Amino acid sequence: MPDWGKQGVLTQAQAETMAKFLQQEPPAPPEMSLEQMKETWKVTIAPEMRPTEPQHSRDWEDFFAVTLRDSGEVAIIDGDTYEVVNTVKTGYAVHISRMSATGRYVYVIGRDGRASIIDLWLEKPEVVAEVKTCYDARSIEGSKYKGPEGDFSDKYAIVGCYWPPHFVILDGQTLEPFKIVSTRSYTYDTEEYHPEPRVAAIVASHYKPEWIVNVKETGQVWLVDYTDPIAPSIKMLEAERFLHDGGWDASRRYFLVAANQANKVAVVDAKEGKMAALVETDKIPHPGRGANWIDPEFGPVWSTAHLGDASLVAIGTDPEGHPDSAWKVVRNVPVLGGGSLFVKSHPNSPWIWVDHGLNPDEKVQRSVCVIAKADPTKTEKCWEVADYGRAVHFEYNREGTEVWVSVWGRADQPGKTGEIVVYDDKTLAEVARIPNLVTPTGKFNVYNTVHDVY
Amino acid sequence: MPDWGKQGVLTQAQAETMAKFLQQEPPAPPEMSLEQMKETWKVTIAPEMRPTEPQHSRDWEDFFAVTLRDSGEVAIIDGDTYEVVNTVKTGYAVHISRMSATGRYVYVIGRDGRASIIDLWLEKPEVVAEVKTCYDARSIEGSKYKGPEGDFSDKYAIVGCYWPPHFVILDGQTLEPFKIVSTRSYTYDTEEYHPEPRVAAIVASHYKPEWIVNVKETGQVWLVDYTDPIAPSIKMLEAERFLHDGGWDASRRYFLVAANQANKVAVVDAKEGKMAALVETDKIPHPGRGANWIDPEFGPVWSTAHLGDASLVAIGTDPEGHPDSAWKVVRNVPVLGGGSLFVKSHPNSPWIWVDHGLNPDEKVQRSVCVIAKADPTKTEKCWEVADYGRAVHFEYNREGTEVWVSVWGRADQPGKTGEIVVYDDKTLAEVARIPNLVTPTGKFNVYNTVHDVY
Repeated sequence: MPDWGKQGVLTQAQAETMAKFLQQEPPAPPEMSLEQMKETWKVTIAPEMRPTEPQHSRDWEDFFAVTLRDSGEVAIIDGDTYEVVNTVKTGYAVHISRMSATGRYVYVIGRDGRASIIDLWLEKPEVVAEVKTCYDARSIEGSKYKGPEGDFSDKYAIVGCYWPPHFVILDGQTLEPFKIVSTRSYTYDTEEYHPEPRVAAIVASHYKPEWIVNVKETGQVWLVDYTDPIAPSIKMLEAERFLHDGGWDASRRYFLVAANQANKVAVVDAKEGKMAALVETDKIPHPGRGANWIDPEFGPVWSTAHLGDASLVAIGTDPEGHPDSAWKVVRNVPVLGGGSLFVKSHPNSPWIWVDHGLNPDEKVQRSVCVIAKADPTKTEKCWEVADYGRAVHFEYNREGTEVWVSVWGRADQPGKTGEIVVYDDKTLAEVARIPNLVTPTGKFNVYNTVHDVY
Repeated sequence: MPDWGKQGVLTQAQAETMAKFLQQEPPAPPEMSLEQMKETWKVTIAPEMRPTEPQHSRDWEDFFAVTLRDSGEVAIIDGDTYEVVNTVKTGYAVHISRMSATGRYVYVIGRDGRASIIDLWLEKPEVVAEVKTCYDARSIEGSKYKGPEGDFSDKYAIVGCYWPPHFVILDGQTLEPFKIVSTRSYTYDTEEYHPEPRVAAIVASHYKPEWIVNVKETGQVWLVDYTDPIAPSIKMLEAERFLHDGGWDASRRYFLVAANQANKVAVVDAKEGKMAALVETDKIPHPGRGANWIDPEFGPVWSTAHLGDASLVAIGTDPEGHPDSAWKVVRNVPVLGGGSLFVKSHPNSPWIWVDHGLNPDEKVQRSVCVIAKADPTKTEKCWEVADYGRAVHFEYNREGTEVWVSVWGRADQPGKTGEIVVYDDKTLAEVARIPNLVTPTGKFNVYNTVHDVY
């Protein structure tokens, strides 16, 4: 504690009062019931009042949902014309946007627990429903399975909360919440009760009517069958602490998730419903959804860079075709610096892109690098994306020909609040700037997010 | 609060101190980790040191495990000779004994959370392992499934706890605990977080490698698949508050469980893995495991009496053969009084037996009644089992020819601590008394408990 007594900030009596206050047991944070959630639930356009076909001629499957972090908004931007089609009010500091199975709807979750659904078929895409299911949240997803067990496209949504520690199942079109499941349980390794196991990444399986729910503090991956969502069936896999973010391998069978404080990547086999591997990485892997590519020597790999190390690792993901490389770090490529938040690639791209948004060095913060798939031993090229802010997060357009990079500025610095820089993916030449955005961060292309292309 | 100030029990200053004390937030009860459980784990005879065949010539499948409630013991009594083969130290106020799938082992749970396993093949049946997995507990069960998905006989055990609110999966031969799952979640109806959902009855399915775990306060029935017990799969059914005790119908497909404060019986379809029905009963049904019989008019039924009403209800359990009666109360038979804890019957018996152990009237407390299956409209006969104590709980011998009734006396009244009275089930004539037992209550015949005959 600072020496506020010596500094004269507090009197002796005030210091004693402060000391007594600090010694009190802090009260437990409030819970949230279904009734409380429903009080926040608003449907501004009911499903039956929504259009039955797109009300505009834009290529909505090439729209990008862009998080404007500090303004509590999402910008819907046209991938063909770079025009901001609409900017909609959402929860604060949106952590992620996910598309419904058809791509028509964008599910958005604010860090404040406010979930929103945006209808891209409206003449002007707009929030059509919202609800607050947590005080603190990071994840949202739709139901994507369509197959012998049913068509669950756009049917349900799920929100994962940090507090209260639970997940909530909602109607996929209205966001009406109807089922809450607590994640409070025991750590997978020492089997100690944990009162606050936060829900990190959630993804929808392509193999089964199932969500993969990553529970951070207990190190468990829960496979949540949503066939009968009132009575969900949950398989509780043991993975590693502290699960954070991750994505699919190229086959969409394996989900790779960073256990960031354990310096590991946990691999879930979504087809068999079990753990496939735990892979040791460098310090604090932070993949976003990661990057898939075909290594010239080791075959299909999935990559992550790190918050704590200046490196990108590639992990073999093809146990059948390349058993010797499977679930091993087959490449460790030095990058410009640590503090990397995201990597990205595309099946059509010659590159793997890497950012360093949380690097302490200002020049590194605003730089991105590319590694050539043809020679994945070094970075091919690095450059500063802007002369201010942090360069962060990549997304490809629908065709995989252009890469969008965010310049995350400061909301209180006019002219330097942020922008998106668009590059030609073949030549790395700058194609366009989408200016005057307030702290843009994550960007989610409709087609690529529906089909998990990355 | 009593007027202790006026009465002079407390001074003004003491009353103020007491008032301040009472206004403090009570501390949360302690949690229990796997490590703490393992510190209490003792294996006195390791599996490899146990005999490979019975070391005595008694008919151990006709043994009874009898709870000696206030002495913290279980008596193993020979069903042929009525001899007490051994009395073994267990947890306090044993709530239930269950047999392993082969019947060789008795699993015993004390209300203090101490689980014990007794080997009936030893020359003198004895506790061969024990562990404390809770501070407060009510249920234990083994893994009974043997079929296409594997042979799980005697492989695993499960303990359900009141506090901490969790269940624990253990090795079925050593009681080594290895997996803890919290039951803390949301009430099924109002979806409010409940910090202490106690685990009530647990039964092993005959259809699947699954335990049916009844969670009292949230009103959920959890179907826990133990195929891969390190990563259990749990289907969370919505039933009713507050689930307590119950048993199988005669086909062993349906599990009927009392939601006692809701005055309902919830019916779980263990084959389909879903709720089959909720049946309204009289006040506070308390079936134990219930009684199955063939009603002359309505076909197969399952029965419970009540703590709060002087009645026995029969519920139709044959939706295919008797669809009009299925999941309805088809009989409501007046009995001697409320306060009934247990009913019992046997396929070979002409009777349904009813006790009234918690009735406030001393004569009713110590009385049992029988209802004739041939005329289930009234009690056929009622009588006092002893001139002291409470008559409580029934169990049949292996052949279904004799019924054992406990006389639950008082541990501090020599000569009246309790006994078991054995009746001929055909004639209702007294056959034997097994005297000088300390507060006997539940009695579990090996064969009948393995095969869920009741």
